[in-house]
Amino acid sequence: MKNTFGNHVCVTIFGESHGSAIGTVIDGLAPGIPVDTDFITEVLSRRRPSGAISTARQEPDPFVIESGVFEGRTTGTPICIRIPNSDTRSKDYSATRWLARPSHADYTANQKYHGFEDYRGGGHFSGRITAALVAAGGIVIPALAKKGIYIGTHVSRCGGIADRVFQDLTADIAALNQMDFAVLDKTAAEKMQARILEAKSRGDSVGGVLETAVIGLPAGLGEPWYDTIEGVLAHALFSIPGIKGVEFGAGFAISEMTGSQANDPFRAENGQICTATNNSGGINGGITNGMPVIFRCAVRPTPTLSQAQGTVDMQRMENAELASKGRHDPCIVHRARIVADCVTALTVCDLLTGRFGADWLVQE
Amino acid sequence: MKNTFGNHVCVTIFGESHGSAIGTVIDGLAPGIPVDTDFITEVLSRRRPSGAISTARQEPDPFVIESGVFEGRTTGTPICIRIPNSDTRSKDYSATRWLARPSHADYTANQKYHGFEDYRGGGHFSGRITAALVAAGGIVIPALAKKGIYIGTHVSRCGGIADRVFQDLTADIAALNQMDFAVLDKTAAEKMQARILEAKSRGDSVGGVLETAVIGLPAGLGEPWYDTIEGVLAHALFSIPGIKGVEFGAGFAISEMTGSQANDPFRAENGQICTATNNSGGINGGITNGMPVIFRCAVRPTPTLSQAQGTVDMQRMENAELASKGRHDPCIVHRARIVADCVTALTVCDLLTGRFGADWLVQE
Amino acid sequence: MKNTFGNHVCVTIFGESHGSAIGTVIDGLAPGIPVDTDFITEVLSRRRPSGAISTARQEPDPFVIESGVFEGRTTGTPICIRIPNSDTRSKDYSATRWLARPSHADYTANQKYHGFEDYRGGGHFSGRITAALVAAGGIVIPALAKKGIYIGTHVSRCGGIADRVFQDLTADIAALNQMDFAVLDKTAAEKMQARILEAKSRGDSVGGVLETAVIGLPAGLGEPWYDTIEGVLAHALFSIPGIKGVEFGAGFAISEMTGSQANDPFRAENGQICTATNNSGGINGGITNGMPVIFRCAVRPTPTLSQAQGTVDMQRMENAELASKGRHDPCIVHRARIVADCVTALTVCDLLTGRFGADWLVQE
Amino acid sequence: MKNTFGNHVCVTIFGESHGSAIGTVIDGLAPGIPVDTDFITEVLSRRRPSGAISTARQEPDPFVIESGVFEGRTTGTPICIRIPNSDTRSKDYSATRWLARPSHADYTANQKYHGFEDYRGGGHFSGRITAALVAAGGIVIPALAKKGIYIGTHVSRCGGIADRVFQDLTADIAALNQMDFAVLDKTAAEKMQARILEAKSRGDSVGGVLETAVIGLPAGLGEPWYDTIEGVLAHALFSIPGIKGVEFGAGFAISEMTGSQANDPFRAENGQICTATNNSGGINGGITNGMPVIFRCAVRPTPTLSQAQGTVDMQRMENAELASKGRHDPCIVHRARIVADCVTALTVCDLLTGRFGADWLVQE
Repeated sequence: MKNTFGNHVCVTIFGESHGSAIGTVIDGLAPGIPVDTDFITEVLSRRRPSGAISTARQEPDPFVIESGVFEGRTTGTPICIRIPNSDTRSKDYSATRWLARPSHADYTANQKYHGFEDYRGGGHFSGRITAALVAAGGIVIPALAKKGIYIGTHVSRCGGIADRVFQDLTADIAALNQMDFAVLDKTAAEKMQARILEAKSRGDSVGGVLETAVIGLPAGLGEPWYDTIEGVLAHALFSIPGIKGVEFGAGFAISEMTGSQANDPFRAENGQICTATNNSGGINGGITNGMPVIFRCAVRPTPTLSQAQGTVDMQRMENAELASKGRHDPCIVHRARIVADCVTALTVCDLLTGRFGADWLVQE
Repeated sequence: MKNTFGNHVCVTIFGESHGSAIGTVIDGLAPGIPVDTDFITEVLSRRRPSGAISTARQEPDPFVIESGVFEGRTTGTPICIRIPNSDTRSKDYSATRWLARPSHADYTANQKYHGFEDYRGGGHFSGRITAALVAAGGIVIPALAKKGIYIGTHVSRCGGIADRVFQDLTADIAALNQMDFAVLDKTAAEKMQARILEAKSRGDSVGGVLETAVIGLPAGLGEPWYDTIEGVLAHALFSIPGIKGVEFGAGFAISEMTGSQANDPFRAENGQICTATNNSGGINGGITNGMPVIFRCAVRPTPTLSQAQGTVDMQRMENAELASKGRHDPCIVHRARIVADCVTALTVCDLLTGRFGADWLVQE
Repeated sequence: MKNTFGNHVCVTIFGESHGSAIGTVIDGLAPGIPVDTDFITEVLSRRRPSGAISTARQEPDPFVIESGVFEGRTTGTPICIRIPNSDTRSKDYSATRWLARPSHADYTANQKYHGFEDYRGGGHFSGRITAALVAAGGIVIPALAKKGIYIGTHVSRCGGIADRVFQDLTADIAALNQMDFAVLDKTAAEKMQARILEAKSRGDSVGGVLETAVIGLPAGLGEPWYDTIEGVLAHALFSIPGIKGVEFGAGFAISEMTGSQANDPFRAENGQICTATNNSGGINGGITNGMPVIFRCAVRPTPTLSQAQGTVDMQRMENAELASKGRHDPCIVHRARIVADCVTALTVCDLLTGRFGADWLVQE
Repeated sequence: MKNTFGNHVCVTIFGESHGSAIGTVIDGLAPGIPVDTDFITEVLSRRRPSGAISTARQEPDPFVIESGVFEGRTTGTPICIRIPNSDTRSKDYSATRWLARPSHADYTANQKYHGFEDYRGGGHFSGRITAALVAAGGIVIPALAKKGIYIGTHVSRCGGIADRVFQDLTADIAALNQMDFAVLDKTAAEKMQARILEAKSRGDSVGGVLETAVIGLPAGLGEPWYDTIEGVLAHALFSIPGIKGVEFGAGFAISEMTGSQANDPFRAENGQICTATNNSGGINGGITNGMPVIFRCAVRPTPTLSQAQGTVDMQRMENAELASKGRHDPCIVHRARIVADCVTALTVCDLLTGRFGADWLVQE
């Protein structure tokens, strides 16, 4: 398993920040899904850094579909998408080879791979690898939309500033999917960007919270044990670099409620069963109940800082100081948002394919 | 996979609340692990309800090891542990067959299994099934201890009351593993129990937060993508009924910090690398860094209430009211704690076996 | 996975020959499948030894369905079937603890499990464990039949005697499924039984070949690489004790043909595509073509013999002699036949569930 | 799973015969394995067609290692090897789009992928995809050799001609690994080539049998049920296009023996246990016994023929005739041999990694 997401629709990712290419192989997708390369380009652009609030690394993320797509549609066989690396400045990193960046993966990679890891720019741990997940998501998001399943993520908190809560989910998701900086309240968006720039000016960074909504999922998806919707989604979401918490529905706040406050009463409406509230985040007993699936991911502040930090020279086993000079983001929350969308879309595809079969996504 | 936890040490669970038995099959454990049936009995007793703060269902949880243990040690072949159900009062539930308990799995089970589910007492969704996970945990916890790996969970919040934070982890874990009501601060424990009884008296329930520490894990465990330690643990933990959030290290609070506050500086001590703080919860880039692994699970208040709640008669598609009369807990946080320990122990075993091989757990 | 068969319908087996019970957990089966316990009893009886040609061990194979079946139908949650061991004579085996029976698993078990294995009566390697697979098969065979999918296996060779070839597959399969000694040609059956008795009288044993036909499978099942129909079936079939070869269609004989002899020309018949011959065994490029799937398994002669054989005392590392005194079969081919049926049925269920979804088996 | 081989060392393949590239992603290999690109080129050249006995398609198989290798060694993260397609003549195939080549995958692909498959040159079913498996094998074969594990395959039968049997395995394997046409008996090799040319002159093809030996495997590898060595190897081997049977040790011939003939008596030699004969092919009870693992694969004659064959126009549902004009081989047995070596090497790596842990392959 390891670098492969999913049981039925399996997404394998590969690549290092400063290798020749990164990419993905998607296996198990239904044949006949139209592949919109413009849309893939668009979602990839959402992940890319832009403007003052992001790293200076500017890479157009051109991609090549090497297999699995023929005459504009998926064939049903593995789809390889390759994204060449072009703007790599390896010399930025070699000088600090043995200085483990605090809260980054340099030390743990060294422990796991015994020094054979490609350390340049974070290697296989680089946030750049998420571009492969985004490209894969770019194939399935339109297919889910045809089935009435829509996904949207907003930056619900960033640098201590809160966005407004979700209101009309259909409208909010549609709006978010047109935004580069996915914040529903424009004033909040401006305040967040100011906080990011302020942190940058100090050589520091900020974190935040992403909130995702999925609408249109049928009831009855997920399993009572192990492959609960919460468990399966969280498993995938924790791959997004910097995620340190995942909560569903009311999440940690539900632990402070009483049962009578927390419970979502059922009610019949137009021959359908729904709930009056959605503290459960659309999931009961690990299984979707037909209400919107709602969850939040805690994103830590970027660990790479230009201000000096205490660290260790792993080769000499001596305490040292490190102020990173490479390109890095004062905040990744707004960039991680499209990754959350895509990881969610791929996970949902996997669950639907397991439940309804290999061709369901394109069946009328 | 579905009802099977793990890739290398695979734990399959089965059973319904009111069937003849529940149980587990554990496959992939090293041969030669001593099996202490008294210890299994002890951990099972920690999960059982006791006293006024729990359900009146009193079941001694006798268990039978049907296979995989010979002359007191694991054989290396699948271990089946069967726990017969004895104290089942099915008539309690039949009258409310079609009334979906709010925030319980009755409705989602009905959607998934089309009415063929065993609805009695929650069927396969019952918290009782966690006894199988606890029995499985009872086999591996002592084996991990021999390797210097210790796990402890406390009720860090319950009904709005906070326990003290972890201090000396070794001592705290040792203390917790002797407690029935796992709260480090005795005064807090009394207040929590008062809150639980108060909720019970109103026919209501309360929730809380479990905090778990794992010490002794080697650095280098986990994978950069998908099978991150966070993702693998969260996947398993969300199976514990009522868990709606999982966070590692500083968790959601880290999203409010700056990078310079959140980062854990490395330092060399006695030829070993450790970190000055542990906001990362012992995990960088999805991989253990040798520091204690710390996480918290949000536990919702028990959804089954004796006060009336709005619901739907699923057969007639009519709004209805339901006040549960069966036995149920006003709080499951303190009982879920041993389940968190055991799910963690099994997950850690799986990760260690994948990394170090099938026999590692018993190698000198 | 190890002791778990299948990806979507997962069959886990457990138990030792002389433990308290053997059994199986079947996860992922559609809810609503009628469970016919008489039929399970019947298929279990086909596996049991009977008469002079088999071991004297006579065990009625009573079984208990512990979970996953409610009001006569599958619930969709894991089905545990437990088969208690009753007629165990452990003293038969203890004297020869360290004498590895040639071509049996005593030595390899000792190497793998370091002496912790339950050695009595073959332990977890005993052919008795196949009863668990047969019980599981007894649940799915009737469900497949409702979908028009039928499976039959005959002893095509035994002790050097050949049965007649398959003719009218529908009639042949129906006939085989009524037989205890599954040979289509009555004269051949008598000759085979004579050979078995003759071998028995010499303290020797004989082997044979099982040929299986599956009719009614839709075209388009299987994968081009890795999860080819041949690969998936062979993977499962090699679990049947004593199987040393699996071949599909013309099998090894096709390697002696020319392409023009071996190829199966397509032709259109009544708006359907079929092939004029079936040297491919119903499989092209790893995927079913709608023709009957045909394969053969080579079954070795039973390794346990009452005549003396050269072996090694594993403890003393000294050469020794061994003449087994326990109960054993002079031939297992005719008993393995129902195991082949059941392993095939379970594998086919798994493939169909992966392709058509979790509920397909009960959909109209 | 589908296009992914292995549980611990996972090899995913992608690509179509006439797409832009084929390739593989290998995940789970130990870090620090030296990668010898010259050796990869050499094994790829063994798979390539050469001379009159093969297809005229001449492609140098240049490959690019896109990730997972750094400074000449594996990093432990996924290795992507991409092999661009250059010599593609798609027009050869378009005219016969709807004429299903007998015993090829055209019809089954159409049934599975509903017409969306890339039909050109066999698409994802093309034998060309095996180059990806060979490239992956080229990384692990030298690593296995450092551990004393050697693999060799000879064409034991081709066009009705037999090679000599294995004698001194160490010497035979060494010799085979220097040969382009892997036949131990030079006279037999010449006769086989004559038969191939003769078949070609008639627009026909021939098949054969591959026999593989693996020496140096430790005893105790494999599982008693499901993941038997036979099952795991056969699962992978049946992916090699044209394989219709796999047998271990004496294989189908063992079914004609008596137990006393078939059994391999154990004996102690120099403090080690070995067997006097090897009818079991180095495997007892699904687990290696330390003797050489021996198996044979039946390879069907190439289905693509230049002589006319009966088929069906899948679009018009009319009977038709087809004489293939594209490039194709009169025999693939000698080319499939290196694929058998590589599939075996990858499978063995997977088994060893599961048993001994992620780093074993490079541990001293």
